[in-house]
Amino acid sequence: MGSLDIAKKAAAFKAVDEYVKDNDIIGIGSGSTIIYAVERLAERVEKEHLRLVCVPTSFQAKQLIRQYKLTLGELDTHPELNCVIDGADEVDSNMNIIKGGGGCLTQEKIVASCTERLIIIADYTKKVSYLGEQYTKGVPVEVIPLAWVPVRKKIEKLLGGQADLRMAKMKAGPVITDNGNFILDWKFPPSEYNWQEVNEKLTMIPGVVETGLFVNMAIQVLYGLSDGSVQRHIQD
Amino acid sequence: MGSLDIAKKAAAFKAVDEYVKDNDIIGIGSGSTIIYAVERLAERVEKEHLRLVCVPTSFQAKQLIRQYKLTLGELDTHPELNCVIDGADEVDSNMNIIKGGGGCLTQEKIVASCTERLIIIADYTKKVSYLGEQYTKGVPVEVIPLAWVPVRKKIEKLLGGQADLRMAKMKAGPVITDNGNFILDWKFPPSEYNWQEVNEKLTMIPGVVETGLFVNMAIQVLYGLSDGSVQRHIQD
Repeated sequence: MGSLDIAKKAAAFKAVDEYVKDNDIIGIGSGSTIIYAVERLAERVEKEHLRLVCVPTSFQAKQLIRQYKLTLGELDTHPELNCVIDGADEVDSNMNIIKGGGGCLTQEKIVASCTERLIIIADYTKKVSYLGEQYTKGVPVEVIPLAWVPVRKKIEKLLGGQADLRMAKMKAGPVITDNGNFILDWKFPPSEYNWQEVNEKLTMIPGVVETGLFVNMAIQVLYGLSDGSVQRHIQD
Repeated sequence: MGSLDIAKKAAAFKAVDEYVKDNDIIGIGSGSTIIYAVERLAERVEKEHLRLVCVPTSFQAKQLIRQYKLTLGELDTHPELNCVIDGADEVDSNMNIIKGGGGCLTQEKIVASCTERLIIIADYTKKVSYLGEQYTKGVPVEVIPLAWVPVRKKIEKLLGGQADLRMAKMKAGPVITDNGNFILDWKFPPSEYNWQEVNEKLTMIPGVVETGLFVNMAIQVLYGLSDGSVQRHIQD
């Protein structure tokens, strides 16, 4: 196992061991780190006979929940979650987060909005002092397909930088999200940002569904390190 | 022709005669009043040989454009419009507008955001001093289907009132929008509202796509009266 995977697994196991208890409704994030969280959840259910309901943030998460024979729930019947465990693409020192490299930002944000305990798990490479320090793919913005050109123009005029339509690799043309929409990846110019304000400006553009900026949402980030230890970042 | 139709037709004809000129890119709204606007556009194209491109705000508008043999455009190729002519469900004395009774609010708002000249046409019954004075169906809010229960709860907690899932009449279950989403109709409690703030609060709830509140968007409302005259309301 490589050092990145050691780190991901450490963060995921810690989150599940610390935050999940019997009878909980748990939101299950998307991405590579989450696989370890679901693995640990399944172990605990098996050993401790926990009764859990797992609400997915994506089709990937739903498949993982099924594969590990956990109980699948949905927001229709479980609109209030005890906690949500999800990954991140980049987290700054104020706990502003970029998510959505995997294109599941909208469902991830919806599910995250249904708990008071969003726990982010990530390997140590995702920790930065300011957004954009390491991660160069920008902020993903999910848009209604027919609006992508005017939304792109409005983002670039309003905030600068460049908003690129995310193209698919395994189909012709753009990536289609689980909700049937397009994604613009906004490469933002280096600057000091008030990310809450930026998120509001982006979200208020007609045709924007959600952005991959998670501001004031996570209460804790657990960073896995390459030696298998975990560093904790708590919201002030 | 009934007095309501006389009024609708008067407003629609006035808007087309006053705002449309050769080589314009025009956004075409949705609803019963718009049918008269498209009728008049077709007359003027025929008589004056105007070269126009018409960008629809809905499937209904697209069909109208085709039926009247006007040139159909889309925002991909025409992201900047000379003007948009659209209807309304209710307009207050500060030109705050409720739209979306026909369920096309998202595309209507996207198209409206692509012009500096949104012209609203309506019959005299749509003119009120405050929103909710006559119109009892509430503010429509388009939501990602899987989020409808938590969004409903958040709206009711944040703003009071009641948010009802709009049910279909010609299919089982909820109305599905042209974008594949659900609609919540928010019946708001009587109060003095800052509608810009309300619109921002609603739109920022994760899972909300757009709302039917159009605030600071229209530059002019043309109300048709039952005698075929037109009353004008201009933004301060």
